[in-house]
Amino acid sequence: MKTYLDCLPCFMNQALRAGRMATDDEKKIKELLDSLGCIIKDIPMENPPPAIAVIIYQKIREIIGVNDPYKKIKESNIKEALALYPELKKIVNNSDNKLLTAVRLSIAGNIIDFGINKEFNLVKDIRQILIQDFGIFHFDEFVKQLEKAKSILYLGDNAGESVFDKILIEELGKPVTYAVRDIPVINDVTIEDAIASGLDEVAEIISAGTTAPGIILNLCNNAFLKKFDTADMIISKGQGNYEGLSNVDRSVFFLLKAKCHVIANDLNVKEDDIVLKMIN
Amino acid sequence: MKTYLDCLPCFMNQALRAGRMATDDEKKIKELLDSLGCIIKDIPMENPPPAIAVIIYQKIREIIGVNDPYKKIKESNIKEALALYPELKKIVNNSDNKLLTAVRLSIAGNIIDFGINKEFNLVKDIRQILIQDFGIFHFDEFVKQLEKAKSILYLGDNAGESVFDKILIEELGKPVTYAVRDIPVINDVTIEDAIASGLDEVAEIISAGTTAPGIILNLCNNAFLKKFDTADMIISKGQGNYEGLSNVDRSVFFLLKAKCHVIANDLNVKEDDIVLKMIN
Repeated sequence: MKTYLDCLPCFMNQALRAGRMATDDEKKIKELLDSLGCIIKDIPMENPPPAIAVIIYQKIREIIGVNDPYKKIKESNIKEALALYPELKKIVNNSDNKLLTAVRLSIAGNIIDFGINKEFNLVKDIRQILIQDFGIFHFDEFVKQLEKAKSILYLGDNAGESVFDKILIEELGKPVTYAVRDIPVINDVTIEDAIASGLDEVAEIISAGTTAPGIILNLCNNAFLKKFDTADMIISKGQGNYEGLSNVDRSVFFLLKAKCHVIANDLNVKEDDIVLKMIN
Repeated sequence: MKTYLDCLPCFMNQALRAGRMATDDEKKIKELLDSLGCIIKDIPMENPPPAIAVIIYQKIREIIGVNDPYKKIKESNIKEALALYPELKKIVNNSDNKLLTAVRLSIAGNIIDFGINKEFNLVKDIRQILIQDFGIFHFDEFVKQLEKAKSILYLGDNAGESVFDKILIEELGKPVTYAVRDIPVINDVTIEDAIASGLDEVAEIISAGTTAPGIILNLCNNAFLKKFDTADMIISKGQGNYEGLSNVDRSVFFLLKAKCHVIANDLNVKEDDIVLKMIN
């Protein structure tokens, strides 16, 4: 997905939120916004938004000197999600269609997103997503491809959401590789976060080698690209990964909640719709 | 009120919305955002936000070549408000406290604001504001000052809202001067809009001489400043006028709805609270 004009003010908002997470020094945050303002004119709009986020987070590291502004928030989100895990497993086990319920829960986990200018209430939002209609629902294709698949590449998105991913991976019943960000960016899941979420018990965890908050293939490492080319099935979580991969040339299943109007328009769904979309 | 860091992304959003109102040419709008991005570093944060809006709208005129992007919207808002006028007058006349009801309606009109990133539903929002608790309620002081006042300066805000102002002015029962923006800026009321709203029937209409979407005294003309100094009572509508005048050295009554968290924090009320605040 290209970067839309609407993404430009949103980048400024993201930088402001991340800056405030990193420091109380308003002058430093102003310096960050000044610096971002100056590079807006150089942003290649044909690139997907996560490519721009790379620049924003580089500026945060340079100007504010903090590598992981969301570290504490991520730890707290993982802890909160792990506390819910036994209850979520019960919901799956007591449901008529365990796989579909696990898909819904995995999308519910996608609300834990600090790249977006929205507040969330985890328990309330889970309840809503368990009964919500899908904006796009390629579940039959998902089941069909899953049945045949011998290897699955699962693209993680946010920390905390990762616990919900574990629940879906447990229902897939196939060998799964779980790919994460190479270094902390927004509240996205890293290897350390994935292990804290218990994903090492159900999947091989690899870094995609990218510092972007979304998989953009030309920013990924070779080991990841090999998995991407050879996996029988790819499950991609969240907006950032959709933004990076919406135009790739192979089959991918996108699981996400459309949390902003730009993504919703691009997907031709309504804002806040939940989506299970297959491409190719 | 100073400009807060939160105002910077909001300026970008305002420019995007105004740009889209003015043209379909995405390249021109990108050029506008590029240009705005470049001047963020030069923004004097000690100045109130409407001073910055002057620069944004100057850029819109320069780059996009449109003087009044909100012209049609303003006409339509005035038309909609005029259609409601007979019903609103009935509400006032049937109420226990006509002045207070007219104050509430005048605040209800303040939701017609395209400087803010919020949608509104006029009829629904009026109903809500007629029964909503005030975040700040200096009504006793308002009545007291009104009783003594021989001249009132009323600072208009948005077009359409101006029709609601007419209703309040009719209940004030005193000679009123209604001050408006000098040229079109966002959807703010100009002399032409004030006349279309019927304000010439109930008040003397003057331009404050400013191109900012809020009264900032050092940007106003001498005729206005004389009225400002000598009026027995000043009623100031909306956020932009509050931003410009919150620290002035004379008594002012601010009537507004706190439509963003920055204003709400500055006023120490909750977002979406309605406010009747006296200073000095």
